[in-house]
Amino acid sequence: MRVALAQFNAVVGDLSGNAEKMRSFYVQATESGIDLLLFPELSICGYPPEDLLYKRGFLDDIRRAVGQLAADCPDIMMVAGFPQDCDGKLYNAAAVLSGGRINKIYRKGMLPNYGVFDEQRYFHPGKEPVIINVKNLNIALTICFDIWNVEWLRDFLEGTGRIDMILNISASPFHLGKIKKREEIISRCAKQFECAVAYCNLVGGQDELIFDGRSMFADSTGRIIAKARAFDEDLLIADLVGIDDSLARIKPLRKPISQPGDLMDEVYQALVLGTRDYAHKNGFDKVVLGLSGGIDSSVTAAIAVAALGDENVVGISMPSRFNSAGTRSDAEKLAKNLGIEFHTIPIEPMLKEFDDALGAISCWNCDGLAYENLQARIRGCILMSLSNQAGMLVLTTGNKSETAVGYATLYGDTAGGFAVIKDVLKTLVYKLAERINQIWEREVIPGDVITRPPSAELRPDQKDSDSLPDYDLLDEILKGYVEEDRSAQQLIESGLPAEVVRKVIRMVDRNEYKRRLCPPGVRITPKAFGKDRRLPITNRYNSGTGPS
Amino acid sequence: MRVALAQFNAVVGDLSGNAEKMRSFYVQATESGIDLLLFPELSICGYPPEDLLYKRGFLDDIRRAVGQLAADCPDIMMVAGFPQDCDGKLYNAAAVLSGGRINKIYRKGMLPNYGVFDEQRYFHPGKEPVIINVKNLNIALTICFDIWNVEWLRDFLEGTGRIDMILNISASPFHLGKIKKREEIISRCAKQFECAVAYCNLVGGQDELIFDGRSMFADSTGRIIAKARAFDEDLLIADLVGIDDSLARIKPLRKPISQPGDLMDEVYQALVLGTRDYAHKNGFDKVVLGLSGGIDSSVTAAIAVAALGDENVVGISMPSRFNSAGTRSDAEKLAKNLGIEFHTIPIEPMLKEFDDALGAISCWNCDGLAYENLQARIRGCILMSLSNQAGMLVLTTGNKSETAVGYATLYGDTAGGFAVIKDVLKTLVYKLAERINQIWEREVIPGDVITRPPSAELRPDQKDSDSLPDYDLLDEILKGYVEEDRSAQQLIESGLPAEVVRKVIRMVDRNEYKRRLCPPGVRITPKAFGKDRRLPITNRYNSGTGPS
Repeated sequence: MRVALAQFNAVVGDLSGNAEKMRSFYVQATESGIDLLLFPELSICGYPPEDLLYKRGFLDDIRRAVGQLAADCPDIMMVAGFPQDCDGKLYNAAAVLSGGRINKIYRKGMLPNYGVFDEQRYFHPGKEPVIINVKNLNIALTICFDIWNVEWLRDFLEGTGRIDMILNISASPFHLGKIKKREEIISRCAKQFECAVAYCNLVGGQDELIFDGRSMFADSTGRIIAKARAFDEDLLIADLVGIDDSLARIKPLRKPISQPGDLMDEVYQALVLGTRDYAHKNGFDKVVLGLSGGIDSSVTAAIAVAALGDENVVGISMPSRFNSAGTRSDAEKLAKNLGIEFHTIPIEPMLKEFDDALGAISCWNCDGLAYENLQARIRGCILMSLSNQAGMLVLTTGNKSETAVGYATLYGDTAGGFAVIKDVLKTLVYKLAERINQIWEREVIPGDVITRPPSAELRPDQKDSDSLPDYDLLDEILKGYVEEDRSAQQLIESGLPAEVVRKVIRMVDRNEYKRRLCPPGVRITPKAFGKDRRLPITNRYNSGTGPS
Repeated sequence: MRVALAQFNAVVGDLSGNAEKMRSFYVQATESGIDLLLFPELSICGYPPEDLLYKRGFLDDIRRAVGQLAADCPDIMMVAGFPQDCDGKLYNAAAVLSGGRINKIYRKGMLPNYGVFDEQRYFHPGKEPVIINVKNLNIALTICFDIWNVEWLRDFLEGTGRIDMILNISASPFHLGKIKKREEIISRCAKQFECAVAYCNLVGGQDELIFDGRSMFADSTGRIIAKARAFDEDLLIADLVGIDDSLARIKPLRKPISQPGDLMDEVYQALVLGTRDYAHKNGFDKVVLGLSGGIDSSVTAAIAVAALGDENVVGISMPSRFNSAGTRSDAEKLAKNLGIEFHTIPIEPMLKEFDDALGAISCWNCDGLAYENLQARIRGCILMSLSNQAGMLVLTTGNKSETAVGYATLYGDTAGGFAVIKDVLKTLVYKLAERINQIWEREVIPGDVITRPPSAELRPDQKDSDSLPDYDLLDEILKGYVEEDRSAQQLIESGLPAEVVRKVIRMVDRNEYKRRLCPPGVRITPKAFGKDRRLPITNRYNSGTGPS
């Protein structure tokens, strides 16, 4: 039996566009003698559709689209994910299409409702396994999380008899290194049931989420035999052969495709895909961003060029008297290296007028934090004005470290439409800069940008280290506190300095309001500042003290 | 038996502050001969604690706080809500405290996971009813949503024998008119079990949510006998008497307290409480806002004064050449009427410098939307600068109608910390203005502000009606589409003009990104633009077309 996994980039809500892509994979499949063609979880409507699922018309349109897809693709058995509305209950379902109609429907049994997932908000759990028979093989249908708890799955499938292959259609969001866990799960599932596994995952960016594809086949010994592209669409085909001694072998039809070499490759590819998809899926060809000559905006600009092309990226330098000649010339050098449009708009004239006007209020002083923030806000105004005028998306350049501790100006440097590196810790931004220069095989990001001590340049001789701990230490604390949910006490006991740990945690907690008002950005870690971290703004709990 | 309902304003995360309040109610109760004292759902930690529940230390601290509370209050039986962590599973629980210790623990069985609720993200459902016996009466414990499905509750309580009273501790968020539904539920529950119901609800503002209190007692015929204050703390005491012929009578200890007279009273009181609690619980005494002389900023300023006092509200007029003499003088008049600090900062000098600077980029023109938005952004800069300088919270003034259709400038007039009237449709803002003048018994909001056709005053002779349908029509469409989840087709079939319906729906859908970046505000409807409406930004579904 020949099975094909069509991992495609579905757009949420684009029913006709998604169906069109599925039809084109069907045409490809008919030319390759495919017996069974898989599409990802909820791929007819994109994942996650969120509260679109509350719209009656949306569900009706989906029902029609699935019926039409079945009618249009009669010659191959296909499995496609869709939300099924049945007697007023909604299910996360997989339709088995063949002979021009919907033949069977499987309903997801395990509904994740943690992290970025809200499936119990919408769906009822399915209670019945569905087994299909193709070419005398027994094939069990599963959807994403169904296979993550293999004990549950064993009970669920009990009494269904011998299974030759498990299909799993997924929309499994990416984070760094998650592929390893995913391979373990799939391998474990294959071993448990002594059968092949065909795993078809979604690809593409959807708001903050990235789906990385990497659909795969495992044989009945649990070995991963074939893997589809990472961060790109693909059609992965393999034959299921040699079912003797209850052993299912997998024979892929093509040679292995190159995969991300390491975590840095994953970071780079995820950011590029996420930026491209957010822009394009929201109708933007071009982006604009402020270039300070610092590491964050340099890396963001390079990612933008990789995502959208140099002709679609505009860099604006907006110096004040606090910006050094070095950073100003580095901004220009970077733009030249990237081949992007570049303009300089000094902010001093606006700064002076604001200062004069605010001077009429007695509390105003031009030496403090408010005056620093004002500079960032003037820059935000300039970028948003260009965005409005020319229809360009503003990319913000804040990294995860500063987003975490609130080292940013609300409605200033946080003002924009998409925050490319908001889930990238500062220490990782440096590594990414070096990797970018390797990938592009030249010094795109000037060496000085990488070696100069970081500064917001909002007052004379300012350094990040005036206000923040060393980034190595800061990032270690943030990784523990934010990404791993470790407590102050745990972090201190692991050897981190108590006073700094407490201070950083306090900063993170107090800046929830700022993060709530930052644009979405690419999620690359198990816990980003987005829908997977839902903390109240109004919150008097002091996580920094630990048990008293 | 004498029962007291202590509806108090808990702050999320403030374990010691909340426990302190509970102890002070306990002291009051000991003076009133109380047998049973109730506190709201999760009141030891505030509701909703959201992802604080993922913190080990938070749960440990709560366990200690509940133990301490029991030890401190040995002489009255108390029921207090807290998250219980047991063998790695978390429950939304009610502790029965007496004799200095925790005697019993009830676990909520029905966990809401829709609308603003995410309880299945955190909690496991309880499976066991808990009945306590006080003075020979059988009393069943329930938590909030447990009583909303009386058939479920009947099955759940089956076999527990005769029940004399049902206790329900709640954190039931307010929306306009919800009290009616709540009374029906409580009444139905009393009738079903032929027993009294003691219902203790939370009060206070928590980010976007308002809890309105109005705890109550129902007798066994389902009649609501006594009701606590609305939108304020209260201790409501009643005796349960006359248990003959299986009839429980309720005798309140005081005369009825005045309740909101109508929906407009509810709107007013909810906005005042929400604004006061957001400011105070986040450490702000003072607020600042822009006064345009229009209806939205006028109403917002009046609410702010009612919430925080006239000495704590600062109004800033920021005119450009497009602002009429009429609105400018109305802004000043309003400030005078309210008795608040008032400053005028003309924006022309900054506008000119931005225009000159942006003029260097060839695409710039000073006639279009970008130039209009720039004016709003300069105002945002001024307000945020004053906020930073003087530690004042910026109140934004956008109403629900403009928030819905995106008739606002992102990072301009949407820039601030709290959006007081973001869930109030424009037509309701007008009614609220009139009600404010009635409540204050004088023309606080100048008559011209109420009668003048609304305008953003960002270009010569601009009127809202240039870009938007009549507010009566717009609000009717928004109420149907946003608050009632009705489709374009349904709205058109109900007699609304098809073209306008489609246009408005398109505007709502396309402006999700803007709403995502607006500050939180008081939720007063069944569906606000907050955690109860979770739509993707990236979304190609056209809800305006209806079935094709």
